[in-house]
Amino acid sequence: SAADSQAFSLAVIPGDGIGPEVIAEAVKVLRAAVAGGAAGFELAEHKLGAEHWLATGETLPDETLARLRAHNAILFGAVGAAPGDARIPSGLIEREMLLKLRFSLDHYVNLRPAKLFQGVPSPLASPGEVDFVVVREGTEGPYVGNGGALREGTPHEIATEVSINTAHGVERVVRGAFRRARARRRKLTLVHKHTVLVHAGHLWRRTVEAVGQEFPDVAVDYLHIDAATIFMVTDPARFDVIVTDNLFGDIITDLAAAVTGGIGLAASGNINMDRTAPSMFEPVHGPAPDIAGQQKAAPTAAILSVALMLDHLGLAEAAARVQEAVEKDIAGRGTAARATAEIGDAIASLL
Amino acid sequence: SAADSQAFSLAVIPGDGIGPEVIAEAVKVLRAAVAGGAAGFELAEHKLGAEHWLATGETLPDETLARLRAHNAILFGAVGAAPGDARIPSGLIEREMLLKLRFSLDHYVNLRPAKLFQGVPSPLASPGEVDFVVVREGTEGPYVGNGGALREGTPHEIATEVSINTAHGVERVVRGAFRRARARRRKLTLVHKHTVLVHAGHLWRRTVEAVGQEFPDVAVDYLHIDAATIFMVTDPARFDVIVTDNLFGDIITDLAAAVTGGIGLAASGNINMDRTAPSMFEPVHGPAPDIAGQQKAAPTAAILSVALMLDHLGLAEAAARVQEAVEKDIAGRGTAARATAEIGDAIASLL
Ligand SMILES: CC(C)[C@H](C(=O)O)[C@@H](O)C(=O)O
Ligand SMILES: CC(C)[C@H](C(=O)O)[C@@H](O)C(=O)O
Repeated sequence: SAADSQAFSLAVIPGDGIGPEVIAEAVKVLRAAVAGGAAGFELAEHKLGAEHWLATGETLPDETLARLRAHNAILFGAVGAAPGDARIPSGLIEREMLLKLRFSLDHYVNLRPAKLFQGVPSPLASPGEVDFVVVREGTEGPYVGNGGALREGTPHEIATEVSINTAHGVERVVRGAFRRARARRRKLTLVHKHTVLVHAGHLWRRTVEAVGQEFPDVAVDYLHIDAATIFMVTDPARFDVIVTDNLFGDIITDLAAAVTGGIGLAASGNINMDRTAPSMFEPVHGPAPDIAGQQKAAPTAAILSVALMLDHLGLAEAAARVQEAVEKDIAGRGTAARATAEIGDAIASLL
Repeated sequence: SAADSQAFSLAVIPGDGIGPEVIAEAVKVLRAAVAGGAAGFELAEHKLGAEHWLATGETLPDETLARLRAHNAILFGAVGAAPGDARIPSGLIEREMLLKLRFSLDHYVNLRPAKLFQGVPSPLASPGEVDFVVVREGTEGPYVGNGGALREGTPHEIATEVSINTAHGVERVVRGAFRRARARRRKLTLVHKHTVLVHAGHLWRRTVEAVGQEFPDVAVDYLHIDAATIFMVTDPARFDVIVTDNLFGDIITDLAAAVTGGIGLAASGNINMDRTAPSMFEPVHGPAPDIAGQQKAAPTAAILSVALMLDHLGLAEAAARVQEAVEKDIAGRGTAARATAEIGDAIASLL
């Protein structure tokens, strides 16, 4: 295919903590997956994150953002300060770097698959066959940074946070979710809290109803976010595609990762479906500074994020091989403790 | 004690669906718990809810609210339309009746205990000894109904939801949570997402820090809401008192109920700690119209809510007896299917 003969330019942002270790293995697996094929990857590393901020005072300069735009995709490790590191303003790196990337590059589909692989223990007694994806909106909702404080620090303080939701923003992510449902088990669950968050909730419901007309073969279901967390532990196998807003998606995907064996296996894609800017692929986990540099982190989530990236770039066959290699590695070795590089080597050697 | 010789006036709102059935058993147990003692309860039933709205067009008239204010406490069943009942505007009863009660009567502590009773199966493989309470803020946050829609129904629609948080509102609920932690295992976990919801999050953090100075014997912990859902399934035994905002509290308490055996056992109190208006006690579950009128619903959550009410009214000894009777009943019979009244009878007979 056309895609297979392409040369891809990939930005790599290892970031902080365990980011560099897991990204090294993800790159190793990427190279093994495309070796001998027609697709080639040229990698450019970008230093960003809490350590970079401490060294330079830069979060995400305009020039860096412009350079990142020129790539075909971004592979991202993890960023953030160690908890309690008083040198770094709390949330600065998350907002001014990670969220700024998602918003600037219009990553409106935050895709987070949840699958209980064979050989992975779930904290649930009877999880069943869990295999769903969450399509989390990535550019709106309570994440827009539209809040403020009045009379801050006084007994009369008022602090607000505004969730902004648009027809444009909701429709495109809902359509993306329906498309994914059509390619899977044809079931879409909208998660919101429309009885309380009336205006945002009704926009989401109306949009799912309207876009659903184009997908009569997809069954539509609705759950309040609170009820969704219950089903996530009592019957996660019921889900196929979940579509939800930025904050509910943040919450439900960590829970989904937990019931499918933990955040160490959870991959994600921050996807610009219109391809007006590069999409970004990252493990759901954070930088875990307590185990950084010790080869203790599982690179599996980062490697599965490579599979999502290959798929997004049109390299479906290579994506499937990475996914299969990971599943095979886990089925054989379970989640027994291995060095980060050992897991990367094992998966690469299966390709 | 003074309280023990008091005559209490109790408003009872059975509501919709299984509400009347479970409230009948809760009243039965209440009567048994105070029988022969010095405290007496006079009950006044108030018809409210979806059925009442269909019959009268009333959600919560001012006169009803004024009459409810005159009681010492309110025992509440469940309200709401059946899903898909097109006669009732979605969320109307929830907002104009249930939330209106919580807001009008200044129920700023929404207290929700989560305890895994002996004999109750958890969906978790190894839950451990789970026994914590969530102190959910009840009068602020994204629940204030402060949102709107612009260009509704057009491709240019913008829908907003505003979370409002005040120093006044946060401080009083945080202080209430610290007090409860001091009376328990002396550990308080703040759950929020301050890296993203900066203004609200910082108000909560600063308040926990400031009020914490008065409680040096209470250990303070912080978790993002997403991480909290992970611990809720991997290590729920770590929690003692969780304090959080209205929406995060809504989500985490349903999840907490799920891991401790289900919403059928989850009690709650909507408490005005200043006693300027009656507090309201209700099971966390909803009206479950699909099983209504069939004696299939467990009245246990409603009965445990009676225990919370007795405790709030200063009848600690009666509260403890109800709690013990419930635990004894469950330990003996587990969660085997019994008729609603059979469970109420069994618990009443243990008193
Ligand atoms: C780090 C944080 C801002 C981020 C989010 O909330 O989106 C993370 O929790 C995630 O889910 O990727
Ligand atoms: C019915 C609904 C408005 C309510 C809430 O969100 O508070 C319920 O979910 C609860 O938790 O009591």
